Amino acid sequence: MLEITSTKNSYIKELKKLEKKKHRDASQCYLIEGEHLVGEAIKHGANLETILVTEAGRGLLANFSELARTTKSYLVTEEVFKVISSVPAPQGIMAVVHQTNDELNQKTMGPYLLLDNVQDPGNVGTMIRTADAAGFGTVILGEGCADIYSAKVLRSMQGSQFHVTLIQSNLMEAMTKLKEKNIAIYGTELNPEAISYRDLVIEGDYGLVMGNEGQGVSKEILNQTRQNIYIPIDGQAESLNVAIAAGILMFSLRSL
Amino acid sequence: MLEITSTKNSYIKELKKLEKKKHRDASQCYLIEGEHLVGEAIKHGANLETILVTEAGRGLLANFSELARTTKSYLVTEEVFKVISSVPAPQGIMAVVHQTNDELNQKTMGPYLLLDNVQDPGNVGTMIRTADAAGFGTVILGEGCADIYSAKVLRSMQGSQFHVTLIQSNLMEAMTKLKEKNIAIYGTELNPEAISYRDLVIEGDYGLVMGNEGQGVSKEILNQTRQNIYIPIDGQAESLNVAIAAGILMFSLRSL
Repeated sequence: MLEITSTKNSYIKELKKLEKKKHRDASQCYLIEGEHLVGEAIKHGANLETILVTEAGRGLLANFSELARTTKSYLVTEEVFKVISSVPAPQGIMAVVHQTNDELNQKTMGPYLLLDNVQDPGNVGTMIRTADAAGFGTVILGEGCADIYSAKVLRSMQGSQFHVTLIQSNLMEAMTKLKEKNIAIYGTELNPEAISYRDLVIEGDYGLVMGNEGQGVSKEILNQTRQNIYIPIDGQAESLNVAIAAGILMFSLRSL
Repeated sequence: MLEITSTKNSYIKELKKLEKKKHRDASQCYLIEGEHLVGEAIKHGANLETILVTEAGRGLLANFSELARTTKSYLVTEEVFKVISSVPAPQGIMAVVHQTNDELNQKTMGPYLLLDNVQDPGNVGTMIRTADAAGFGTVILGEGCADIYSAKVLRSMQGSQFHVTLIQSNLMEAMTKLKEKNIAIYGTELNPEAISYRDLVIEGDYGLVMGNEGQGVSKEILNQTRQNIYIPIDGQAESLNVAIAAGILMFSLRSL
């Protein structure tokens, strides 16, 4: 295994830059960290550039499949590892993963979760994880959403990028394509101008649009949906957190 | 209105200490900030110690009821305000609120959300906000939960402490009292040893127990419930975030 002992190593400097979206976009790569995430990447055949382990993390490689052993790997010092790690207590295993740039096509599976300008990374990551758990096939992220390859999104997504198809696209264009596939799109509103999700009748495949934390789904999109729905508030809270609302709706729609 | 212009003022020093749980416990007070939260506190008759405004925030007082005008108020400089503010862009209005120490009694209203060792402040705050939205009457926080008066919990709770009854109690003791009131307690499990929440039949008032982010609800508590339930995972995600799970369950139970 190749060894890196200097924090000034040029490859380490390159990886450190992946903290920034600009460099992730340019290299089309991102970092994942920890036994669970690296394991999920390998299990689901993600396109790995390299694997980096410390002496402590080296043993974890043995738990993984052939892919881990055929991927270019580096043994790095604890000090080098900490330079590129984004967690307080690193497990000593990390992988550089090629971004996937999926597009909507005939093979893309529903149900679809569409995110319109969801800005909080924790919300974006949690909604993708929840979509995965609810059995949704695809999440489409419109412009203005938190970057799916940022450390915070990756952390709350918990590896669901390897389970569901993630598409970054203009939402109006995506909706046009979904409609051509005869997929019903349901928008969500923050107030009862729409019908209660409990009264929704679903036939066939569908998409659900969740919106910005403050403004909700844009009017432009709400005007293009089959139906808009809302969650009735029984108490005195003014609204629900958008990730909570998405969870309630996705699990409810899946049981219809 | 009394004025404070020095960051070394003894009252300001006292308020600064409220960042720490130890001092909140000793004084039985906590700070809330911003027009929305202070407005909710006033609207729901919270026991206010003082109100602090900057010149910019002073005008907001006029929007509030008589209570705001009869509460001891201070006009402070921007500099003084920043010393005790916990947000990046302060609105210039803050209130010192007396903690409420509610106990389970005949007047406590259900449904009940019970939190067993939920440690993340964002999760605790979001679950209380969601309980409020779902029409739950009471949230009981067991030992080991994040402090409800910490800045992070207060931020994600969004004023729901003024809408639902919050009780801090040993959970086993609380469950005994709830059972004496003939309230059915449902525990949640992370795996299908329990029945699906979709198969649950509810009669009368009830309580729902949510557990620690990693370990779930403790065995001791699960052994004392009427029934334990779980959320079936359709996709490949290993689990749901606990606040998302709570949202799905509370809204589902309320519609039964």
